[in-house]
Amino acid sequence: MPLGTDYARQDCSLARSLEIVGERWTLLILRDAFWGVHRFTDFQAHLDVSRAVLSARLEALVEDGLLSRTGTGHASYHLTEAGLSLWPALYALAQWGEQRTTPGAPRRLFFHIGCGRLEPDGRCGACGRAPLPADLEIRPGPGADFTVRDDPVSVALREPHRLLTPLPPR
Amino acid sequence: MPLGTDYARQDCSLARSLEIVGERWTLLILRDAFWGVHRFTDFQAHLDVSRAVLSARLEALVEDGLLSRTGTGHASYHLTEAGLSLWPALYALAQWGEQRTTPGAPRRLFFHIGCGRLEPDGRCGACGRAPLPADLEIRPGPGADFTVRDDPVSVALREPHRLLTPLPPR
Repeated sequence: MPLGTDYARQDCSLARSLEIVGERWTLLILRDAFWGVHRFTDFQAHLDVSRAVLSARLEALVEDGLLSRTGTGHASYHLTEAGLSLWPALYALAQWGEQRTTPGAPRRLFFHIGCGRLEPDGRCGACGRAPLPADLEIRPGPGADFTVRDDPVSVALREPHRLLTPLPPR
Repeated sequence: MPLGTDYARQDCSLARSLEIVGERWTLLILRDAFWGVHRFTDFQAHLDVSRAVLSARLEALVEDGLLSRTGTGHASYHLTEAGLSLWPALYALAQWGEQRTTPGAPRRLFFHIGCGRLEPDGRCGACGRAPLPADLEIRPGPGADFTVRDDPVSVALREPHRLLTPLPPR
């Protein structure tokens, strides 16, 4: 990956992270995987990215151990433990975006299932713990704009959806 | 910025974040600003990045309101409130890199000054709070490699250093 070469002389854990997830589109692919997107065609429809770029990014993520691929032909991609452990960073970056662009009207809300709403620091407002992604539900927030996209993933996300469960539902 | 165009059809706060900080080198420039780097020549010496790229990235960060520039000629760059609010995301991403690449031997350690060590979740192990960057000290960890770089910023970071205070010291 080109970033690897560029950042090689930075003795820094952030640079190492960016070598893996700093490529264009990579974090959005991982985001979709957290939502529950598993199939190439669904990633593509939701991301509007070329087949070539999507293939390359998925390949790199499998190689770097963040996604595992099962099946052939209609392969299915799932977050590994290493991929799942990126959740706090991904959530923190998304929260920063919410606060920067639509303060007071988040596009997405997250709930600790059966407990409370997730705070911007990643902890449940009710129990104070930092739930695992599998215990979270995503719901449209007051800032969501349903007119932007109508691909199957976007349509499914207009309703509450448990993270990591297949999206779109089949 | 090219990423803006690419991600424009993603109604997503993460995509908005990446439009601002997803450009190559941008997060490493912000990292240096958190450490206390303020001057063009120091960013350049620490990052090994071309003058043209560094100029463009600093310009964009000022335009996006994450850095402020003071002085002319020998300008000085400082994180704004918006820039400072990126700390939790930047720290989370760096921690993920530490755990992925050198588990058990972090390159950098962070301390809540006068209190305790910062945990991977960004909270102080002693008081349990999430300190502001200005209240943190960075120190080399057991995984630090002093042989990689000898620019003035890297040399200064071989000793404990309070975040946001000028680096290298003058």
